[in-house]
Amino acid sequence: MSRLLDTITNPTDLKNIPREELPALAAEVRQFLLDTVSKTGGHLASNLGAVELSIALHYCFDSPADRIVWDVGHQAYTHKILTGRRDRFHTQRQYGGLSGFPKRSESPHDAFDTGHSSTSISAGLGMAVARELKGGNNKVIAVIGDGSLTGGIAFEALNQAGHLKKNLIVILNDNEMSISRNVGAFSSFVSRKMTGSDFRKLKKEMQGLLENIPAIGKDILHFARRAENSLKGFLTPGMLFEALGFDYVGPIPGHDLPQLIEVMENLKGVEGPVLLHVMTTKGKGYTPAEQNPDIFHGVGPFDVATGKTSGGKPGAASYTAVFGEALVKLAEEDEKIVAITAAMPDGTGLTPFAKRFPERFFDVGIAEQHGLTFAAGLAADGFRPVAAIYSSFLQRAFDQVFHDICLQKLPVTMALDRAGLVGDDGPTHHGVFDLSYLRHLPEMTLMAPKDENELQHMLKTAIHAGRPVALRYPRGAGWGIPLDRELQSLEIGRGELLAMGSDLALVAIGATVYPAMEAAKMLEAKGIRATVINARFVKPLDRDLILGAARQTGCIVTVEENALQGGFGSAVLELLADEGMTAVRVKRIGIPDRYIEQGPQARLRADLGLDAAGIAATAEGFLAAQGKPALSLVK
Amino acid sequence: MSRLLDTITNPTDLKNIPREELPALAAEVRQFLLDTVSKTGGHLASNLGAVELSIALHYCFDSPADRIVWDVGHQAYTHKILTGRRDRFHTQRQYGGLSGFPKRSESPHDAFDTGHSSTSISAGLGMAVARELKGGNNKVIAVIGDGSLTGGIAFEALNQAGHLKKNLIVILNDNEMSISRNVGAFSSFVSRKMTGSDFRKLKKEMQGLLENIPAIGKDILHFARRAENSLKGFLTPGMLFEALGFDYVGPIPGHDLPQLIEVMENLKGVEGPVLLHVMTTKGKGYTPAEQNPDIFHGVGPFDVATGKTSGGKPGAASYTAVFGEALVKLAEEDEKIVAITAAMPDGTGLTPFAKRFPERFFDVGIAEQHGLTFAAGLAADGFRPVAAIYSSFLQRAFDQVFHDICLQKLPVTMALDRAGLVGDDGPTHHGVFDLSYLRHLPEMTLMAPKDENELQHMLKTAIHAGRPVALRYPRGAGWGIPLDRELQSLEIGRGELLAMGSDLALVAIGATVYPAMEAAKMLEAKGIRATVINARFVKPLDRDLILGAARQTGCIVTVEENALQGGFGSAVLELLADEGMTAVRVKRIGIPDRYIEQGPQARLRADLGLDAAGIAATAEGFLAAQGKPALSLVK
Repeated sequence: MSRLLDTITNPTDLKNIPREELPALAAEVRQFLLDTVSKTGGHLASNLGAVELSIALHYCFDSPADRIVWDVGHQAYTHKILTGRRDRFHTQRQYGGLSGFPKRSESPHDAFDTGHSSTSISAGLGMAVARELKGGNNKVIAVIGDGSLTGGIAFEALNQAGHLKKNLIVILNDNEMSISRNVGAFSSFVSRKMTGSDFRKLKKEMQGLLENIPAIGKDILHFARRAENSLKGFLTPGMLFEALGFDYVGPIPGHDLPQLIEVMENLKGVEGPVLLHVMTTKGKGYTPAEQNPDIFHGVGPFDVATGKTSGGKPGAASYTAVFGEALVKLAEEDEKIVAITAAMPDGTGLTPFAKRFPERFFDVGIAEQHGLTFAAGLAADGFRPVAAIYSSFLQRAFDQVFHDICLQKLPVTMALDRAGLVGDDGPTHHGVFDLSYLRHLPEMTLMAPKDENELQHMLKTAIHAGRPVALRYPRGAGWGIPLDRELQSLEIGRGELLAMGSDLALVAIGATVYPAMEAAKMLEAKGIRATVINARFVKPLDRDLILGAARQTGCIVTVEENALQGGFGSAVLELLADEGMTAVRVKRIGIPDRYIEQGPQARLRADLGLDAAGIAATAEGFLAAQGKPALSLVK
Repeated sequence: MSRLLDTITNPTDLKNIPREELPALAAEVRQFLLDTVSKTGGHLASNLGAVELSIALHYCFDSPADRIVWDVGHQAYTHKILTGRRDRFHTQRQYGGLSGFPKRSESPHDAFDTGHSSTSISAGLGMAVARELKGGNNKVIAVIGDGSLTGGIAFEALNQAGHLKKNLIVILNDNEMSISRNVGAFSSFVSRKMTGSDFRKLKKEMQGLLENIPAIGKDILHFARRAENSLKGFLTPGMLFEALGFDYVGPIPGHDLPQLIEVMENLKGVEGPVLLHVMTTKGKGYTPAEQNPDIFHGVGPFDVATGKTSGGKPGAASYTAVFGEALVKLAEEDEKIVAITAAMPDGTGLTPFAKRFPERFFDVGIAEQHGLTFAAGLAADGFRPVAAIYSSFLQRAFDQVFHDICLQKLPVTMALDRAGLVGDDGPTHHGVFDLSYLRHLPEMTLMAPKDENELQHMLKTAIHAGRPVALRYPRGAGWGIPLDRELQSLEIGRGELLAMGSDLALVAIGATVYPAMEAAKMLEAKGIRATVINARFVKPLDRDLILGAARQTGCIVTVEENALQGGFGSAVLELLADEGMTAVRVKRIGIPDRYIEQGPQARLRADLGLDAAGIAATAEGFLAAQGKPALSLVK
């Protein structure tokens, strides 16, 4: 039981707690977070770092009238606990449970949905303008981490906010660490500390300058240059934000509740945009997380006493790991291969590459747009860049893929991890649109391996293709297939015939190939003979293989872990229509036209009929509807 | 004849011209630009402003070994003239001629293709890294305007460049004006000038501060705050870029060739990233363009002597103008309507709205990402934002459309101007992918009007739909259709039956509806009776109407000015497949799987079979291939 926390079901209850009791409440929240997340898994370190910040916000402001926008949202657990969701908090990131991110549909206290980075200032500015137009007097607060601040949209928003001068509070939650390490000149600058010797030096320089100042007005430029040089070392984050039109307050310690509350109360009176710089510690209060914030950023269940996460990976290597090792192998033989990540070296499996080839590895920060155009620049001057990025995050760089890569036919390999259903992170993170948003771009080659071994060969194929290639593969473990030592280039646009049958053809892509094979076995048990095709390529399609199967069976079932609109199945429909093969019946299995909630991958796949049983059932029903019942019935 | 210019067919020739003759060369280039662009049309003002900058760059650096990346690229005319394309320059932006933008396929001196804004620093950084890895010693120069600097990707790139510390020269071509006016705190800050009184004030404040300085080390934070306050007013653009890790040089006058050359020669010796701030005048040297840089940004043919552009618009009102007027009309009745542009108030027709409702109008700068999330924030708090944006520029905000608008089901109207083939700007600007990149997003409603009158009604429909809607319409004049005074909401997902015929059905969307009707008349003359459907909605489709026509004719021809992959025709294929209507034959007319070059819209449409004659010919051929020849042949 938690003496204080148990009394809070909404932010009003929080305000009844005496101010001097708040640190005790923070301790209770932290214990509650540890107890729960150690069982459910989740984003632990960022949330432990935001306990006091969240309490102070709800103590000082009046949500939901005051609008709090949490950037990315993986630091909003305390916010959820304080806004009526403590009882259900053990369901977070579980199937049917609370989201791991803020969701407007979940609570009026969640002002804006997040999940992807760097959007909070833009959304907050929209809300601030809405308030002005309505003549309201509510506050708007955007809470953004130092990592998220490297995303270009955050800068675009700061720029307009400084220009519009509406009341808007931006809280920079600075833990000197984005998801992995800090990247970029800006980050290192923001987290700079002034020392006594800095000031001594400044004082001396300024005194010298002022003593020898020339007749002002005569030589302003010269004086300005000298003064500027003296002042350079004195630049602070405050001045940078001031230059963008913000008032700057801070930095203040982020775990000192009295000070946080005092400063926030003062912020209420500030006119115009203001930025409060708060220093926090990722994993605060739990030693294993403070010491290993990377491991405890997104973590599975773990033992609170020891900090040990439960068990390593399952037997089969993950696609991510296989990708990373294959890239190192290929890079050993080809010095033109360089690798790029957007602040996800671990998540994308590039850490081994970074260690082996530090000079050929580039972490651009949370800056997918820049990352892809940077890759295009490298490719234009003779390199073979591999940009490893999550499928749903490449959406940020869609125009760069079009404008800087495909239009120029530049040989950039886009390695799209987390394609398909990702599981617990839910709809913001499912990578179920890439086949649809990339397929229509001319010059694009688009492929997906059936297993982790094929992934290796496809990576070599992509890098050697000499053209834009996107290669998508799922989150999680492979099928436990042995990995070939020798990597081979596959023929582009050539699929693989896995089984022959005359009743129908299962044409599957990527992670759905094995389930399709298993479905074929289930169908066989019912007397239905299915051809099974591993399509390998979504663009260009293997026309001969697919058309041959269409002619032979007259009945095609396409299977993909991607949206049904404009995806792989649609490509097959287009092919058949263009070939005038109207007699062929086609059933498309894939992600329906709605957003898919969180849940274990296997569960979601089963729900959507994307597992072997689902594929078999759909195929059987489809055949039956065509008047082609299972042979077992007519034998 | 141009005495100096005639001697130059490549940058080496330029280097043979005595330095003191260069201003005379600049005058010749300027005259050549005026003579040519007054006949062909094009981006005049930005190019007149970059004459000396371009000459100095090619005089000091050694292209193509040294890599010059022109941001956006609409200031690269002088560069093209000096790099062997003077003789063909009269073909620029013409069908089959030179591009109005840099193109790697056109010349080795064009280091990188541009057209969309803010990519040059990213690409340049890629090239700088490529040079380091190769052990080369060439220079890399990115030339970027102050407007482009407001795009988030530019900030992302500056951030990484300052961090990596590779040699990279960024030239800020500051004409204090992006395409329209400057937007944002950053822009106004960058173009700030220091005055004598600023310095006097600073001197006084600093002296006071230094005299009363407390014992250093004891009260650093307090001293820092006071010093910072004193220094705030002294911030210069130089300090901002220095904070990002760049050496800063400037500002220097951008039309003074000796100074430009002297400074550029010095830049060659600078280690690490350096930013040269150059002040230029848009339209420099041609009074009408200096006085009206907006008009002469992108201009048609004009009279050099008077500055008069040849003739106004054609008889029919443009879609852009009709949109703008309809929005004002709707906004008169609904104070929740607000409008957003990304630095294109004129281009998107929002200027009348901005004049009528200045407090409800927002120009976010060249920042499409922020603009769409800002709209989402407004929508989340009760407003009905209309974001007017070019189809190809919305590509920049694809993830925001997904993550901040559709996933949250927020009522944002995306008014996509310049959808379809845009003409002279070519492949970077054709808006031929929007139906494909938006159709697969759940919760999206996607429509396109057949004419300018329907556009008005669709705009009302979209704003009142209470959900995400994208509305796409073409560049240029409408069909001269009278405009209804009363605007009505259309039924969502309901198309329009325009003609009935039993041989085939032409199912058209948007700008292709009238050509399809005309094609039906051509077919009728040959005895082929065609149903004609104005689909209106790409999502949701009018199932009943399309399935009815499919049943009746058994033969569907879809027509769209969008990529054939994943577009409107594919949606029809999906519908027919899902309904098991396998007997229906479908032919899709649209943009094939390649990038379409520049040219007059009518010419491009004819080339692609998207005009009436092309549609009729395709339909006739399709019928014939099905064994359904024209009735006139069998009568």
